[in-house]
Amino acid sequence: MRALRLPGWKTQPELVDVDEPTPGPGQVVVKIGGAGACHSDLHLMHDFDAGAVPWNPPFILGHENAGWVHALGAGVTGLEVGQPVAVYGPWGCGVCARCRVGAENYCENPAAAPVPGGGGGLGLDGGMAEYELVPAARFVVPLPDGLDPVRAAPLTDAGLTPYHAIRRSWSKLPPGSTAVVIGVGGLGHIAVQILKATTATRVIAVDTRAEALRLAEEGGADLTLRSGADTAEEIRAATGGRGADVVLDFVGAEATMRLGAAAARTLGDLTIVGIAGGTLPVNFFSVPYELSIQTTYWGSRPELIEVLELGARGLVRPKTTTYGLDDALRAYAQMQDGTLEGRAVIVP
Amino acid sequence: MRALRLPGWKTQPELVDVDEPTPGPGQVVVKIGGAGACHSDLHLMHDFDAGAVPWNPPFILGHENAGWVHALGAGVTGLEVGQPVAVYGPWGCGVCARCRVGAENYCENPAAAPVPGGGGGLGLDGGMAEYELVPAARFVVPLPDGLDPVRAAPLTDAGLTPYHAIRRSWSKLPPGSTAVVIGVGGLGHIAVQILKATTATRVIAVDTRAEALRLAEEGGADLTLRSGADTAEEIRAATGGRGADVVLDFVGAEATMRLGAAAARTLGDLTIVGIAGGTLPVNFFSVPYELSIQTTYWGSRPELIEVLELGARGLVRPKTTTYGLDDALRAYAQMQDGTLEGRAVIVP
Amino acid sequence: MRALRLPGWKTQPELVDVDEPTPGPGQVVVKIGGAGACHSDLHLMHDFDAGAVPWNPPFILGHENAGWVHALGAGVTGLEVGQPVAVYGPWGCGVCARCRVGAENYCENPAAAPVPGGGGGLGLDGGMAEYELVPAARFVVPLPDGLDPVRAAPLTDAGLTPYHAIRRSWSKLPPGSTAVVIGVGGLGHIAVQILKATTATRVIAVDTRAEALRLAEEGGADLTLRSGADTAEEIRAATGGRGADVVLDFVGAEATMRLGAAAARTLGDLTIVGIAGGTLPVNFFSVPYELSIQTTYWGSRPELIEVLELGARGLVRPKTTTYGLDDALRAYAQMQDGTLEGRAVIVP
Amino acid sequence: MRALRLPGWKTQPELVDVDEPTPGPGQVVVKIGGAGACHSDLHLMHDFDAGAVPWNPPFILGHENAGWVHALGAGVTGLEVGQPVAVYGPWGCGVCARCRVGAENYCENPAAAPVPGGGGGLGLDGGMAEYELVPAARFVVPLPDGLDPVRAAPLTDAGLTPYHAIRRSWSKLPPGSTAVVIGVGGLGHIAVQILKATTATRVIAVDTRAEALRLAEEGGADLTLRSGADTAEEIRAATGGRGADVVLDFVGAEATMRLGAAAARTLGDLTIVGIAGGTLPVNFFSVPYELSIQTTYWGSRPELIEVLELGARGLVRPKTTTYGLDDALRAYAQMQDGTLEGRAVIVP
Repeated sequence: MRALRLPGWKTQPELVDVDEPTPGPGQVVVKIGGAGACHSDLHLMHDFDAGAVPWNPPFILGHENAGWVHALGAGVTGLEVGQPVAVYGPWGCGVCARCRVGAENYCENPAAAPVPGGGGGLGLDGGMAEYELVPAARFVVPLPDGLDPVRAAPLTDAGLTPYHAIRRSWSKLPPGSTAVVIGVGGLGHIAVQILKATTATRVIAVDTRAEALRLAEEGGADLTLRSGADTAEEIRAATGGRGADVVLDFVGAEATMRLGAAAARTLGDLTIVGIAGGTLPVNFFSVPYELSIQTTYWGSRPELIEVLELGARGLVRPKTTTYGLDDALRAYAQMQDGTLEGRAVIVP
Repeated sequence: MRALRLPGWKTQPELVDVDEPTPGPGQVVVKIGGAGACHSDLHLMHDFDAGAVPWNPPFILGHENAGWVHALGAGVTGLEVGQPVAVYGPWGCGVCARCRVGAENYCENPAAAPVPGGGGGLGLDGGMAEYELVPAARFVVPLPDGLDPVRAAPLTDAGLTPYHAIRRSWSKLPPGSTAVVIGVGGLGHIAVQILKATTATRVIAVDTRAEALRLAEEGGADLTLRSGADTAEEIRAATGGRGADVVLDFVGAEATMRLGAAAARTLGDLTIVGIAGGTLPVNFFSVPYELSIQTTYWGSRPELIEVLELGARGLVRPKTTTYGLDDALRAYAQMQDGTLEGRAVIVP
Repeated sequence: MRALRLPGWKTQPELVDVDEPTPGPGQVVVKIGGAGACHSDLHLMHDFDAGAVPWNPPFILGHENAGWVHALGAGVTGLEVGQPVAVYGPWGCGVCARCRVGAENYCENPAAAPVPGGGGGLGLDGGMAEYELVPAARFVVPLPDGLDPVRAAPLTDAGLTPYHAIRRSWSKLPPGSTAVVIGVGGLGHIAVQILKATTATRVIAVDTRAEALRLAEEGGADLTLRSGADTAEEIRAATGGRGADVVLDFVGAEATMRLGAAAARTLGDLTIVGIAGGTLPVNFFSVPYELSIQTTYWGSRPELIEVLELGARGLVRPKTTTYGLDDALRAYAQMQDGTLEGRAVIVP
Repeated sequence: MRALRLPGWKTQPELVDVDEPTPGPGQVVVKIGGAGACHSDLHLMHDFDAGAVPWNPPFILGHENAGWVHALGAGVTGLEVGQPVAVYGPWGCGVCARCRVGAENYCENPAAAPVPGGGGGLGLDGGMAEYELVPAARFVVPLPDGLDPVRAAPLTDAGLTPYHAIRRSWSKLPPGSTAVVIGVGGLGHIAVQILKATTATRVIAVDTRAEALRLAEEGGADLTLRSGADTAEEIRAATGGRGADVVLDFVGAEATMRLGAAAARTLGDLTIVGIAGGTLPVNFFSVPYELSIQTTYWGSRPELIEVLELGARGLVRPKTTTYGLDDALRAYAQMQDGTLEGRAVIVP
């Protein structure tokens, strides 16, 4: 089969011909219907070195996958060939306390995982190919009625990651509260939709790009702000001086993290999802009292089921552009030069 | 001023002329903009006897009130004459642990309240008059921008009561869950709207009346069911056999409570809001495992602020019919014979 | 091997010789170190009929088991022969939403479980034998250091069941609150210990038997009450008139359930764990406002790990009497005539 | 009456004679039984300048007070002269959303408070005098039976502050979890006691001083560690490599904050209570995934009631040394040179 493989660190991925995978006991082969292209793939191509993570190329890219069950290994029950499914991406050990409740994104025994701290498209072969080998049946999640693999694929990361970040803050988002989304790109525009679908909070979207703010408005943002020197003050003004109850930073740069801390309310949440290299100096006087500051990473298997349900009901509709496997490199090029609209999904 | 007063138990209210109230220290007089007529007023007129509650007529009816600040007693700060306000209806002692956090609906020292277990329109003079005396400034809640007193009035009970019942169950209402609303009348149709505005749960509305189900559909119900012998099975079928995560019974009759228990999921909530005289026999085998069954009564002051915010933003829009004070008795008559559409609001 | 087997409904169990089990793929054979005798075993012997549950005798009794890993089936990883383990008793399908997070006690697809709605000792062969076949490795939980199988066995049901019932109510048990334990038998005396170990609530224990109340005092109960006509009033008096925040009924008779409802506080929890055949009539006026009433059944796998930890640290110490397999019938006889002290553990 | 007053910034407090206060409407005068001396008083004497806070000397010191009701202003109900009471210290506006539920420590309208961002002993006259004027009855909290003012006084800050920090993390402290207390001084040794009284978590105490670790052991710490280069690794080793679920930093220096981040578990809490001037640089790679980092400040009124209950039942027993008003300066001197044992309480 054809596949888009990363041959080594600091190289471009290349289209290669490889053998179709066959499932061992407990494993599943998924015929790929859609594989999302993610900003973190650019990091894999350009920024990583041997030793940065406990795995190395070559491997097939694509960690945001959905399709249909193609072949079942011995002992797998509860799935049927041909059934539409999504692939839960963070592959943990399956037996630590975190994995036992489906939070394999925070596996505490990565040495016992299929690959330590990675998964398909992240150290192991991923979904930018005709088929993907999924090493355990629990990573395969049936799609709800009404959701096809092309629309499902981006939900497994670009949907699941903001969903997890938002869900953990629900208790701080009753009517009268305000949530700020900084960075309305691939993840951020879905965050706006998730906030609107699951809470009655007011949503303020912040970005430097007019098109991004238009996307936020389409998703239901109550207020959009072109980011600048006064953004924190504008957010305070829009919240009666109190600040935002929850700030979600999908950029993670120095400036956005500082904006988040300046715009947040005491007792609020500042959640850093983006990885643009910023650092926030936290001390008793630099942040509002009892503002909780944390990073989040991906999401849990039960949360994936919930975000797929939102997709099936049309409450979350990622903006996507589809590409063939031949065109995948073009998708990454557009992602890099900022001309990609929404999320790129490779359809093999 | 003119007022609709209940002269005694088992009598009809009558329109009388009484003195305008003046505020004592810490008190507030509110000029009434709207006073909702509630089904429980019919119970006051027809079903109560001396001894049933720790207070007696005569008193002015109307426990669902909003208007404008008219006069402030000595020592009241933070309110201005002319300011639009709602009246928080359950008047507690103000100092027990429950009242200290605004849950005066569950005051634990009613002997120290303005009237034990009651309030304005419930033992003390209420809002079906030109002015209402509110015995403590904490019962007066400023209206958010964009919400006028006529639209606000029904939110203080017909809105607040379902809001409280729903809010306490939010954690059981993630995407993929199902909420059932039994009885889509004055409270139930607002419950449908609140569920849609604050969660992504699927809402099933159940009623015997086609018009009620139409009202539920307008409010966004995902499925409406004419109640009958198979309703519990229809709900199970619509939930993959699992049953409803949350059932809200706005009727409270024998049949609706049994339906609730039969349609609910293990670990779910069955919340009884209506008072139609039913009793549910609960034992280890009659209800699903760990289904939590409870009544609820009205709501808290912080919750009232939240439901007013939903009203101001148009996320909750009670269906109302307005009447003059002269016409109030006609409103009750229509309520009784079932020809009232939505909630009746008396506008003095 | 020798085993205590129930030959049919409405019969006495008998000591028989059966083949030692061998593990299939994914299965584990546990050498039994201790198997608790439970009151529900008496129901199996005396009260059940064909059709009452979806399974039938013959099967080996014992659903409260711990011991050492004896043999591992193909594909089982993470366990070692000789390792001390407890057996998680409620065996679900493993793939429904509930099982995925370890709450197999509330499995929603029992048709796909090893036996529908049962487990080892409940339809399938249990632990009153030298060895038990456990049909999936996830039901085997390693013992923490410092806890041997004889002490661990009763924790898997007599410990786990009250632990689950208490843990779900933790948020209602801050300092200043009161918990009432009705029935201080095999489960109830452990409930007292769990409450003391995990919260600072005041614990009131209620029983008809002086010895039971002594056991409650040993466990740290702050107040013990011989149950009688005035018990509800005594509880109200001991709580400043407010009532108990949480009532745990380990009896489940008509009288205890009514006591629970009468003694509970508004917004409290009344949790029915015992199955003595009572029924509580619930309506708007029969129970305090927003008292949540529910049954609970057993507990989850993560909760078992937590209660084993309490056992290992000596914070929970079930009172046990040990018997050989030959003496098991005597243990049941003493259980029935009320002369059994604490929990009976069969040591093969 | 005699009082210990701070005459100006960067000066020593002096013992002066001032008029006894008299209560205005709604106010209460408390006869002081005990006034705790706090480390932050040293900051007031040595570190503050005009402009640092929105208030200035002179004022009587002492923000940790208990005693007996001495005189009631007009309109105060529910309190009796002679009744033993504690003073809730953070004095907010009373009407913002935070104050309405008793969280005046996070008042959002400090301009409307008795003094912006302060209270008695912090801008207004405090408790190091024979009497204290408390400007609103809601700041006066009746003592539970069994707790005298001398033992109650330190609970209002040295008890309430760690209690709040711990209570917000309860859900992360089930059996099997680990809490780390860094800095076992006036607040830290009470934190150890509160953790032991309200949870079954294992407590690790860290300090540089052997005496402090002895105090931690007396309070029930399961493990004490003399802080050094390997402390984070020792904590990881003691937690099976996972790290601590909750870290409470009562120092707040650069080194302790870094230790907290290094010793914490993914999904844990790192709460910074001490104000020793440290800063923690937070980015995606410097802290464990989804570790929540926050400061906390004091606590809420309902929490004060809970911590007083713990004191009354002997579950929290601050180590105190008492001094007369004449000796107060000696107490501060000992605090500064590190020879003070436990908390100093001034008894006028």
